[in-house]
Amino acid sequence: MLQGKRTWLFENKPAIISTGTTGGPFEAKGNIPDDFDILYDDMWIGEDSYEKAERVMFEDACSTAIEKAGLTKEDIQFMFAGDLVNQLTPTSFAARTLAAPYFGLFGACSTSMEGLALGAYIVNSGGSKYILTGASSHNSATEKQFRYPTEYGAQKPPTAQWTATASGAAVVSDQGMGPKVTSATIGKVIDMGLSDPYNMGGAMAPAAVDTIEAHFKERNIDPSYYDLIITGDLGKIGQHVAYDLLQDHGLHITKEQFVDCGLQIYKSDQPVQAGASGAGCSAAVAYGHFINKMKQGDFSKMLVVATGALLSPLSYQQKESIPCIAHAVSIEM
Amino acid sequence: MLQGKRTWLFENKPAIISTGTTGGPFEAKGNIPDDFDILYDDMWIGEDSYEKAERVMFEDACSTAIEKAGLTKEDIQFMFAGDLVNQLTPTSFAARTLAAPYFGLFGACSTSMEGLALGAYIVNSGGSKYILTGASSHNSATEKQFRYPTEYGAQKPPTAQWTATASGAAVVSDQGMGPKVTSATIGKVIDMGLSDPYNMGGAMAPAAVDTIEAHFKERNIDPSYYDLIITGDLGKIGQHVAYDLLQDHGLHITKEQFVDCGLQIYKSDQPVQAGASGAGCSAAVAYGHFINKMKQGDFSKMLVVATGALLSPLSYQQKESIPCIAHAVSIEM
Repeated sequence: MLQGKRTWLFENKPAIISTGTTGGPFEAKGNIPDDFDILYDDMWIGEDSYEKAERVMFEDACSTAIEKAGLTKEDIQFMFAGDLVNQLTPTSFAARTLAAPYFGLFGACSTSMEGLALGAYIVNSGGSKYILTGASSHNSATEKQFRYPTEYGAQKPPTAQWTATASGAAVVSDQGMGPKVTSATIGKVIDMGLSDPYNMGGAMAPAAVDTIEAHFKERNIDPSYYDLIITGDLGKIGQHVAYDLLQDHGLHITKEQFVDCGLQIYKSDQPVQAGASGAGCSAAVAYGHFINKMKQGDFSKMLVVATGALLSPLSYQQKESIPCIAHAVSIEM
Repeated sequence: MLQGKRTWLFENKPAIISTGTTGGPFEAKGNIPDDFDILYDDMWIGEDSYEKAERVMFEDACSTAIEKAGLTKEDIQFMFAGDLVNQLTPTSFAARTLAAPYFGLFGACSTSMEGLALGAYIVNSGGSKYILTGASSHNSATEKQFRYPTEYGAQKPPTAQWTATASGAAVVSDQGMGPKVTSATIGKVIDMGLSDPYNMGGAMAPAAVDTIEAHFKERNIDPSYYDLIITGDLGKIGQHVAYDLLQDHGLHITKEQFVDCGLQIYKSDQPVQAGASGAGCSAAVAYGHFINKMKQGDFSKMLVVATGALLSPLSYQQKESIPCIAHAVSIEM
């Protein structure tokens, strides 16, 4: 099971038997609208707050995944999930609706793979037949909490990233068809002293590199093993930094192989500065776009490296730098 | 491994090989000062913010546990931890210091047993040799965030609970001496419609009852199996409610058997209204006071049921009720 210091191999190959993805109106106009199961016309989703809207969006992703698996919510034994809102408000309230035994997780935008790593581990070792995992983010709820209410129209520098309004959920089981979760490498907190919350991609890049290097070393494979190495979400700046660092460290990943969820979800002419971010971005893009492509036979092996900036408005105000983390999970057909 | 729907049995009996507990000046004047490894003279712990003070307090609990186990921080393979501050700021920064692969958890005051359940699971199934788990809370950091800065001197009703300034950490391993973690029952979100943030014990009681009932049913044992069934933290009101509900449901737990971390940590004349709460309370009292008593031979089997109120200031302001959860972990000599 454990190989090296922080990599788990899943010998029983738990499968992602279904996924559910939901997104907002801005995502509907994006690059991959067909990869969302549900797209909403407005940011409120019939609710009277953005946090409640995020809850509905995540509930819809979960219930879509459960339905596509031919299950009911009573079949889900454990749920591993989180979001960016303080105290995981949308996720905790969604867990109330789903009524499944629940592990609340916080890893900022790395939450998607934190949940998949833990959930796949539990399924692989016989601790559950069906687990549900996922993550969400809502642009207006997140901007209000971390920066400014979107209604203020505050400007952002070109290094900033756009928080996606999106959710992704997956049902993982030891039986059933679907891409297999074959291993996971768990991230350490890496902090290179960057403190600009408008350049989180740059801050997170070294964490992604640390986890990717550990993954290849501990699995004793080289980058050519994977068709794609997918970060989520470094954006333009961070992905560039990560690519250069990986080359410097002697890991020969090609530019074609190295993609970022934050650069997939929107069209190049959408005004998102350096790209997308948000816990829901890597969840929706990995469980929607990339899993769909795998199932269509476009490629067969991917490493998803979800990166999180573990800052808070308070740590920023207290002049702290940004601690970052990345968790990598391999998914193979 | 899985027994019933949401109980894991740990056949390989991972052991709590060491613990570390730290507490503030108010806790030093409390009921169990000798059960803390470190007690601080003031709430700032030499830092310039309460959140940084909480980080130091949690780091000290972790390094004490690591040292008592005869290990160094490099030996810790995975860390499962969390706290109450938005974005788990103290824990994430402590994880940076410890440099161990890190799973951030949020379960409010249930985080202590959420972490022990997951950590023990991973050790039991060969995923790690040494894991570190723990939780913390700081009265001033928490009051400021959830209610009012303590400097305002806001009054509270008698049903309110006092957030403990405390941390508890444990090293769990598949080798070494110490109390064994034998099983865990994972909680569902239970919400009976209560919405008063000054009566969280009352709100959490049904969640504790739900998990305790599931535990006995799925393990197929009766309450007499345990010397103690320890909730954390229901306080006076919630513990009374939980006791009555358990009796109504036909679970015959005696009053002597049924204790609460929130009623252990302070003296009866300390002005804490209905008792203590906070993620660090159940962590410090379970890993300090009760583990010490077990090691001294006072009793040999306990079930620790950590309860969490998953509300946020925002969910309260948006007129939501309080979703609650409880995770139960059995520890036996």
